[in-house]
Amino acid sequence: MEITKHTFNEQLDSILTAIEESTFLAIDGEFTGLDAEGCSHIAPFDTPEERYLKLRHGSTDFMLIQFGLCAFKVDEEKRIYEAKPYNFYVFPRPSSRNAPDRRFMCQSSSLDFLICNGFDFNKLIKEGISYLSLEQEHKMKAELERKHAEQKNRSASSVLSPDGANSKKMPLPVPDDQKEFLTDICERISVFLEGDDEELKLQSCNAFQRKLVYQTVEEKYPLVHLQTKTGEKKERFLVVQRAKDAEDLEKKEQEKQALEKMELDLQVGFTKVIKAITKSGKLVVGHNMFLDIIHSMNQFHSVLPYNLVDFKAMVKTVFPRLLDTKLLANTPPLKDFMTYTSLNDLQETMQSKPFSPVPVKPAPGFDLYNSGSVALHEAGYDAYITGCCFATMCKFL
Amino acid sequence: MEITKHTFNEQLDSILTAIEESTFLAIDGEFTGLDAEGCSHIAPFDTPEERYLKLRHGSTDFMLIQFGLCAFKVDEEKRIYEAKPYNFYVFPRPSSRNAPDRRFMCQSSSLDFLICNGFDFNKLIKEGISYLSLEQEHKMKAELERKHAEQKNRSASSVLSPDGANSKKMPLPVPDDQKEFLTDICERISVFLEGDDEELKLQSCNAFQRKLVYQTVEEKYPLVHLQTKTGEKKERFLVVQRAKDAEDLEKKEQEKQALEKMELDLQVGFTKVIKAITKSGKLVVGHNMFLDIIHSMNQFHSVLPYNLVDFKAMVKTVFPRLLDTKLLANTPPLKDFMTYTSLNDLQETMQSKPFSPVPVKPAPGFDLYNSGSVALHEAGYDAYITGCCFATMCKFL
Repeated sequence: MEITKHTFNEQLDSILTAIEESTFLAIDGEFTGLDAEGCSHIAPFDTPEERYLKLRHGSTDFMLIQFGLCAFKVDEEKRIYEAKPYNFYVFPRPSSRNAPDRRFMCQSSSLDFLICNGFDFNKLIKEGISYLSLEQEHKMKAELERKHAEQKNRSASSVLSPDGANSKKMPLPVPDDQKEFLTDICERISVFLEGDDEELKLQSCNAFQRKLVYQTVEEKYPLVHLQTKTGEKKERFLVVQRAKDAEDLEKKEQEKQALEKMELDLQVGFTKVIKAITKSGKLVVGHNMFLDIIHSMNQFHSVLPYNLVDFKAMVKTVFPRLLDTKLLANTPPLKDFMTYTSLNDLQETMQSKPFSPVPVKPAPGFDLYNSGSVALHEAGYDAYITGCCFATMCKFL
Repeated sequence: MEITKHTFNEQLDSILTAIEESTFLAIDGEFTGLDAEGCSHIAPFDTPEERYLKLRHGSTDFMLIQFGLCAFKVDEEKRIYEAKPYNFYVFPRPSSRNAPDRRFMCQSSSLDFLICNGFDFNKLIKEGISYLSLEQEHKMKAELERKHAEQKNRSASSVLSPDGANSKKMPLPVPDDQKEFLTDICERISVFLEGDDEELKLQSCNAFQRKLVYQTVEEKYPLVHLQTKTGEKKERFLVVQRAKDAEDLEKKEQEKQALEKMELDLQVGFTKVIKAITKSGKLVVGHNMFLDIIHSMNQFHSVLPYNLVDFKAMVKTVFPRLLDTKLLANTPPLKDFMTYTSLNDLQETMQSKPFSPVPVKPAPGFDLYNSGSVALHEAGYDAYITGCCFATMCKFL
C-alpha cells in the first residue's frame, strides 16, 4: 500500500495496529545516492569500526526517500503468513518557517536508476510525508513553547499597563517609500472593518513589509487579528480578522497557537511509524540493511555518533532486535546453498530445493504485490520479498 | 518551447540559427538550491571579491536544472521584437560508464518551491538533456582516443604474433563456482553459431562474470564479437554476434568505436547551446544573473577559479557581453522610477508610465507564453520576461 502525506493520517492507526500485531517486520529503504565523491570505498578487510566510519562519512549526506515496511503475521492454524506491505514516500518539506530546511546530496546515477525502476520524484516532493528527528522535534517543541509563553506574558503585561511600554520592542522606523503602501493597507482594513466580510486577504508582500503591517495594525487597530499564511505558490500573505473584544482576540490567539501545535505534530509525521516500531520491540529484518539503519537513525533519531560502540548503543534504543537476511544467507549452514545473495538471487534460491517457500498471502486491501507483479527496487516490495525470504530460511533452519 | 533529450537533437539546428540571427539573448536558470547550510550570507557591504567567494562556496554544490534562453530579433520595419523562448531541462545523466557521475546538493525548500510552480522532476531525471563541461569533454575525448588506439595496437599485434603473448594481459583465474556458469555460456554460444539468429543476448550478469566471458570468448571463439549493453532497468548484459572473418570482426569493432564516439557527442548535449552563444558574441541579458552565470560556468565550462579576477576573465571567454537588468533598473536614471526590482515587480513597472512596453510577438511555433499565460519561475518564461523588460528599458533610455 502506497502511503503519501494525503493518506498518512487516515492510515496511521491501522499502520500502528499492523506493527503491534505483527510476528516480525521487514524494512527497506531507497536513497538519493550511495557514495560521496572521493570517499574511500569499503574494503573486504576493513574492521567493523572502519566500515561504519566510512559509511557514516560517505553516505549520510544522501537521503532516504522511500521507506518500505512489511508487517508479517503468522496464522498458526493455516500455517501461512499474512503480509501488510507499506511503501512510504518521505520528504523533509519545511512546512513552517521554524522547520529545518534540509540540504542533501544526490547522485545522478542513483536518481537515473530509481526513475528507470518506476520511482516518482514529483510524488516524493509534492506528496512525501514529513518527518523530524527526535532531536529536531524536541528543539522545535521547546521553541514553540517559549514563543507561546512570551506571547502570553506580552498580552498579560499589555493588560496591566495599557501602553505595554515595558515589554514592547522598539518599533521599526517606516521608510519613506513604504508610507504609501502602509496607508493603502490601513484604508483597506478600515473599509473591511465597516463591512460584513469574515476576513480580508491582503496582497502578498515581503517579510519586511509584513513586519511593518503587524506593527502598524497592533498600534492602530487593537481589535484586529493578523495572521501570516502561505499560498499555493509559496507566496506569503496576511489575513485580517476582526475581534469583538479583548476576550475574542485572546480566543483567536489561542486558536492560532493550537494550530501551530497541530502543525508541529504534522511535521513529526513519518517519525511516528519509527517510534511505533521501537515501542513494539518486534524483530526487524532487512536485506543488506546497514545503510538502511544508518539513514533511519540519522533522519528519524539524531545525528550519528563518531564511533561504532555508541552507534550500536543508539541503534539498540530504536531497533532493539535486528536481523540481516544477507548476513544470515552468508552464514553456515545456509551459506552452502547460496551462490549469490542479492535480494533477487536469494528470492530465486528460495523457490527451489532444498528450500520450500513459506506461503504468504497479502492481507485484505494489500494486493499490490500479489499475482506475480514485480516492483523490485521499490522499498515496499523489497521489504515484502525480504520478509518472505526470511520466513522460508527460518522454516528450513 | 520546451526542449528535452527527445527533441534536443532535432531542434538543435534551429536553436543555433535562432541564436545566430538574434538581436540579443536573455537567459535564466532554476537551481536545486540556493545557499548551503552554515554558509555566510551575502552582506550589503561585501566587496565584489567577497561576494564571489561566498557564492562560489555556498552555491556551486547545487545544480542548475533548467536553462531558459530567449532569442529576441528586432523587426526594424514593424518596430516589433520577435521572441523565441526555449526552456531546457538539463540533467547530467551518466550515459556511459566513463561519464562523470555527478553528486550535487538539493535544498528541500527550493525543490518544494519549484514543484509548487509547476517544475516536473520526473521529466528532469528521465528526459533532461545531458551536458559536459569543456574540461570533462576534453578528458573523455582523450580517454576514448587512448582506448581506441590501444585496441588497434592489440589487434595489429595479434595479427603479427598469433598468440599475441606480448600484448595480452595475464588471464583471470576462473573460480570454481564460476565454471558451471562459463560452460553454460559456451554451450549457448556454440548453439548460436550453428543457428541462423543475427545475435544472441546473454542473461544479465555482474562485472566480474562479464570479464570472464570476454576472456573465455576471445580465447575459444576468434570469430565472435562481444558487446556490453545496458537494459531499460540499468541491468548490464552481453550481446554475441558472429563475424565472417578477421575483416568482418575488424569492421564490427570499427562500428562499435563509431558508436562510442557518437555517444560522447550525445553526452556533450546542451553544452553545444552554450558554445553557440559564445561563438555568436551576442549580448546576453539576465535578471539578477550572478548565480546563473556562476552555475553556467561551473557546469558547462570548468571548475571555478578561486578569485574574482580569474573568474571575470573566464566569463569573458564564454559570455563576452553580459548585462544584468536588475543592475540596470537600480542605476540612475532608471532607479528613480523603481520601487522594487524583482522580475515580477519590474514587469509591472514596465506596463505603466513613464514606460511604454515594446511590442514583442512570439515567433511562429512559440506561442507557449502568449495570451497572458503566466509561468513565472519557469526558466524559459523568466528569460522571456527579462528580455521584454530589457527592450522596454532600452526604448525609454
